Amino acid sequence: MNIILLSGGSGKRLWPLSNDVRSKQFIKLFKTEDGQYESMLQRMYRYIRKADPYANITIATAKRQISAIHNQLGEGVDICVEPCRRDTFPAVALATAYLHDVQGVPGDAAVVVCPVDPFVKEDYFEALIKLEQQAKKGEANLVLMGIEPTYPSEKYGYILPKSKNAVSGVSSFIEKPDAKTAKQYIRQGALWNGGVFAYPLQYMLDKAHERIRFCGYYDLLGQYSALDSISMDYAVVEKEKQVQVMRFHGPWKDLGTWNTLTEAMDGPDIGNAIMDKTCQNVHVINELDLPILCMGLNDVVVSASPNGILVSDKTQSSYIKPFVDRLGQQTMFAEKSWGSFRVLDADAESLTIKVTLNPGHRMNYHSHKYRDEIWAVASGTGRAVIDGREQAVRAGDVLTMQAGSRHTILAESELKLIEVQLGKEICVQDKEKFDLE
Amino acid sequence: MNIILLSGGSGKRLWPLSNDVRSKQFIKLFKTEDGQYESMLQRMYRYIRKADPYANITIATAKRQISAIHNQLGEGVDICVEPCRRDTFPAVALATAYLHDVQGVPGDAAVVVCPVDPFVKEDYFEALIKLEQQAKKGEANLVLMGIEPTYPSEKYGYILPKSKNAVSGVSSFIEKPDAKTAKQYIRQGALWNGGVFAYPLQYMLDKAHERIRFCGYYDLLGQYSALDSISMDYAVVEKEKQVQVMRFHGPWKDLGTWNTLTEAMDGPDIGNAIMDKTCQNVHVINELDLPILCMGLNDVVVSASPNGILVSDKTQSSYIKPFVDRLGQQTMFAEKSWGSFRVLDADAESLTIKVTLNPGHRMNYHSHKYRDEIWAVASGTGRAVIDGREQAVRAGDVLTMQAGSRHTILAESELKLIEVQLGKEICVQDKEKFDLE
Repeated sequence: MNIILLSGGSGKRLWPLSNDVRSKQFIKLFKTEDGQYESMLQRMYRYIRKADPYANITIATAKRQISAIHNQLGEGVDICVEPCRRDTFPAVALATAYLHDVQGVPGDAAVVVCPVDPFVKEDYFEALIKLEQQAKKGEANLVLMGIEPTYPSEKYGYILPKSKNAVSGVSSFIEKPDAKTAKQYIRQGALWNGGVFAYPLQYMLDKAHERIRFCGYYDLLGQYSALDSISMDYAVVEKEKQVQVMRFHGPWKDLGTWNTLTEAMDGPDIGNAIMDKTCQNVHVINELDLPILCMGLNDVVVSASPNGILVSDKTQSSYIKPFVDRLGQQTMFAEKSWGSFRVLDADAESLTIKVTLNPGHRMNYHSHKYRDEIWAVASGTGRAVIDGREQAVRAGDVLTMQAGSRHTILAESELKLIEVQLGKEICVQDKEKFDLE
Repeated sequence: MNIILLSGGSGKRLWPLSNDVRSKQFIKLFKTEDGQYESMLQRMYRYIRKADPYANITIATAKRQISAIHNQLGEGVDICVEPCRRDTFPAVALATAYLHDVQGVPGDAAVVVCPVDPFVKEDYFEALIKLEQQAKKGEANLVLMGIEPTYPSEKYGYILPKSKNAVSGVSSFIEKPDAKTAKQYIRQGALWNGGVFAYPLQYMLDKAHERIRFCGYYDLLGQYSALDSISMDYAVVEKEKQVQVMRFHGPWKDLGTWNTLTEAMDGPDIGNAIMDKTCQNVHVINELDLPILCMGLNDVVVSASPNGILVSDKTQSSYIKPFVDRLGQQTMFAEKSWGSFRVLDADAESLTIKVTLNPGHRMNYHSHKYRDEIWAVASGTGRAVIDGREQAVRAGDVLTMQAGSRHTILAESELKLIEVQLGKEICVQDKEKFDLE
């Protein structure tokens, strides 16, 4: 199976656990059998592999998500990077060209596209395989997944099938309706359009060429920022006559708010949390090193990260966005391809962060113009390079880098550093990267 | 007025803002006219000074509170230190001997004793002055303040006066009753015993000598740990025949729980907090650098410090103690005589703290056997001494101290340091102090 996972989103609705660099699909919320937690992305990836061990998975995403994806899925994962945000049609066109021109997937192969962030169970992945098989049959140019609605949502478009069969033609599409209209359509048998579909690769390439003049993936990539923003539904799906819908019954949830997300959690808390017996329907997700004690609460979600603390009635939490816009966040923690960091203290002329480098990984070789830096090695072993001079480092070592000096550090075992940045103008932009000779 | 302020308590009920070194009287909760916040201790001290600019105020307290008291009231404040905890009678006896033998207060002077932590208004301080004047009259050996009860509390002892006069003899004392009994006594005119009383100095010295064989303050101090724990009420008050009670009507509140404490706050929040319009009767006290966002909550207190985060229904919060006992806290922040510190990160072989030194202050000259330390100067100017060598330091400087090296730092302007401790055995006990030559 060739599958394109669309990984987008900004995730403001899940503040403080999501931020500019961590969309909701990267939050580790789901308990695996070995007691660890995995993210929606990791869960989706793992289930696809389980359903089809030979699946060719490509993640279509923005540049700012690359580090987090590599951190969570390893360096080997295939990523098709959108140079900027241009809605789903350009994204699918680019990823399809990538499959064809870079990966060598033939034009008659079927491709499945699905978003990375719905919360689903195993039957969903079986449905993806059926979707691909249906697309291969060549009965239609496009095969959509139609999700049987559980409530008259105003968030989704609807697909009205011609019949109640497992696979059916499409009688019409309905753009996001109000709840009353949605109710009527559901009575007529309408299904949710969850943005999951399959097609023969060449079909989508042709559709791309109809709208965009380009020759091959690299050309399309080069002119990506000049493309119009247009959704897949609007550009292709709703215009296509040769379209089928395959109905899907099983659980399919958008975990876009704290209310829906906590419903999908395996237990009442993640992280350091204590609840007294009088707490009812309370969920705590705590990514801080501090304990959270909850007493006498009902229907409340408490969520804490280095970016802030949310304490909210679950229903009320869906109105969070304007408050998060007001907060205008600095990135206080992030997963990088080489490990992770979190801000411990931010002051006028200093910034103290804790850096964790994964074994075998190193940060870029870089320098700063306007700040000095110190590394205090808290644990682990590795090798540092400062202005071309390499040295072994281990727990207890202290390294100082004057402004202008080029530096990097490579972890042999997991390496934890306390980094103190000192200077009058500390900002993320003050960074020049170099090749390590 | 000679006044002994009893400053005790461990303050577990106000976790996470109080801890082993910060009892509730040190939490800054009350807004002053200039928009700053002050603690119960600071407020009490300021009001006494306002009521009597010449008041001779002595704080009777335990060793572990000295730093915080100096931090909040300055170095000039008079403290009578109890070497260990021995209930109120030994504490009052020691402080009375201190007044007589160290301060030279004569035996016929009146002394007022009161706890530092009730929440009171200006009329309370006028009442203290009246209490002292009444004690001076010599009509009784002891004059107690009898607080008019506002509800049948089970927390206080009760005093049954002989009459309804402003000053009256005492007909009997009642130890903490249950609510039903309390109700009956209140109907008979009983008053709360809030542990506020006045006496002629010599009277209390005589009472001390009756129970303890000692000659003078220093002798009493030396044998303090061998003294029996016994309360003032039990040892003296309830046995005294020549005793009067002076009734006090005005507000008098024990802010011992989050529920009562938030009632006394001047606004709904202290620190970085945002509440949506659907929050009702919500209080936030946030000592972290992170924003706290509250949505759709009713009757909830949220309190956050480097020790942890409490989210509790206000009524339920009074049952906090067993949970705090379970948490078994490390001290994550503290006010010291020279400034303050907070823990930014604690790992197996490193501890990162942020130190703030007040202008003109310095920490002890000291060394550690089992850890190296780094100071990165985040802001301010000062002078450091490392192994006898003095040097000027300012923002941006980095100093490293190997295990064994003696070091201190003096702040000229307010000085902020990031201190990284590195070693396999990091503990507070690993500290040797030296005189600075």
